[in-house]
Amino acid sequence: MNKLYVVGIGPGEYEQMTIKAINALKESEVIIGYTVYVDLIKDHFGDKEFLTTPMKKEVDRCMLAFEEAQKGKNVSLVCSGDSGIYGMAGLILEIGQKYECVEVEIIPGITAASSGAAVLGAPLIHDFAVISLSDLLTPMEKIEKRLQCAAEADFGICLYNPSSKKRFDYLQKACDIVLKFASEDTVCGVVRNIGREGEAIEVMSLKELRDKEVDMFTTVYIGNSQTKNINGKMVTPRGYKNV
Amino acid sequence: MNKLYVVGIGPGEYEQMTIKAINALKESEVIIGYTVYVDLIKDHFGDKEFLTTPMKKEVDRCMLAFEEAQKGKNVSLVCSGDSGIYGMAGLILEIGQKYECVEVEIIPGITAASSGAAVLGAPLIHDFAVISLSDLLTPMEKIEKRLQCAAEADFGICLYNPSSKKRFDYLQKACDIVLKFASEDTVCGVVRNIGREGEAIEVMSLKELRDKEVDMFTTVYIGNSQTKNINGKMVTPRGYKNV
Ligand SMILES: C[S@@+](CC[C@H](N)C(=O)[O-])C[C@H]1O[C@@H](n2cnc3c(N)ncnc32)[C@H](O)[C@@H]1O
Ligand SMILES: C[S@@+](CC[C@H](N)C(=O)[O-])C[C@H]1O[C@@H](n2cnc3c(N)ncnc32)[C@H](O)[C@@H]1O
Repeated sequence: MNKLYVVGIGPGEYEQMTIKAINALKESEVIIGYTVYVDLIKDHFGDKEFLTTPMKKEVDRCMLAFEEAQKGKNVSLVCSGDSGIYGMAGLILEIGQKYECVEVEIIPGITAASSGAAVLGAPLIHDFAVISLSDLLTPMEKIEKRLQCAAEADFGICLYNPSSKKRFDYLQKACDIVLKFASEDTVCGVVRNIGREGEAIEVMSLKELRDKEVDMFTTVYIGNSQTKNINGKMVTPRGYKNV
Repeated sequence: MNKLYVVGIGPGEYEQMTIKAINALKESEVIIGYTVYVDLIKDHFGDKEFLTTPMKKEVDRCMLAFEEAQKGKNVSLVCSGDSGIYGMAGLILEIGQKYECVEVEIIPGITAASSGAAVLGAPLIHDFAVISLSDLLTPMEKIEKRLQCAAEADFGICLYNPSSKKRFDYLQKACDIVLKFASEDTVCGVVRNIGREGEAIEVMSLKELRDKEVDMFTTVYIGNSQTKNINGKMVTPRGYKNV
């Protein structure tokens, strides 16, 4: 049966791919993805056929992957980070109901929450919530409710899609919600271009984060009440009892 | 400067390690970890010195790692999954303040949430919360509050440490809290021994999960209100609007 791999390639650098992900790409004749992600890995898989589709054309990209697989080829659909976290795995399994003769395998990758955390220190050692600030497919009230509940429960919070041209003030709004429950001194951090050229981190207070400008290549971390700044690293202790 | 790598080795199988993690282990003279994790990778790094410490001896393990690095060796401390999610990265950075001559590098790995999700389908495609049910280092009220807030906000929920001999009824208690906000038909899943011998999944309703017995080698997923069972796979759609 033809194989369709949905491959998480990690943050960007080749070394942060798993062997399993690399093997899937090697076994594929066709590699499909959003242009930016395909460019990140292209050099390492020179002999493959690459098909790219623009951003936001997710359904088209999935259909293209199944169509290619139906032609009798092994196909990899690549996603940044983990294919199962704001990635294409879900859509592929939904659309896959129509393509029974294609065998789908989901291959996980290092998600931005994990790769960014490693650069920042250890912000996600304890319970945390992952929230996307993009309201493209989610009503804003739902996002706000989640921010509020996450802050109320003292979760560490990791924000994906913290900003875009149209949504330049969303991070500020998010911080204002969290500030209703958390101290303005809460330790926070941002990581830009994880595992890519220009990787940069900054550790700051929640008050400072509120006025920080970030872009869509950034992942944002808001600590829980126990999170510390240790020599410029953001560190959340494992537990709440004395260790 | 001597290097201390804190390495996430992923769920268990060698193929789910990243190249970066493999390279760190190759560059190390000493590999330290909890016995079970060291055994998972030992065969692939035959020429190394292996030091193991029992479970719950986390502080001792970190001290040992620094002491070995201070002797002038490159050392890897290995953790299952991601070293930054319920892993040793935090403790190492805290203790590291006393060992300034050792350079620490955190190397992320595929966390159980991601590796288990890939086997189950795509349960974590949208916003989710990660909660450990272990009350060893966290007061039970804090855990309960988080379960409640996560359910109230309709997060997907991923539970680590869902059970142990002493805590056999914790999953049941957790489900009872979630059931106050979520339908008993909410799609849930459990994955046991991800990437290891005996890997097994089960997709079920929240009502069924409540009466399910699980062990400490299991990761548990509670879907959000939109999560579906598609041909036995647990799939959460990307967004809430019509796609
Ligand atoms: C549509 S989501 C894709 C997430 C991806 N599937 C993952 O698991 O990391 C895009 C968001 O992920 C985060 N992200 C992904 N890769 C990143 C990187 N290399 N550096 C910083 N942030 C990244 C950013 O917040 C970005 O806006
Ligand atoms: C102390 S936590 C360590 C988590 C690890 N650092 C990670 O990122 O996956 C241990 C819990 O992780 C989950 N877990 C870790 N590896 C697993 C595996 N291979 N299969 C199933 N669950 C696993 C289980 O819930 C287990 O009780």
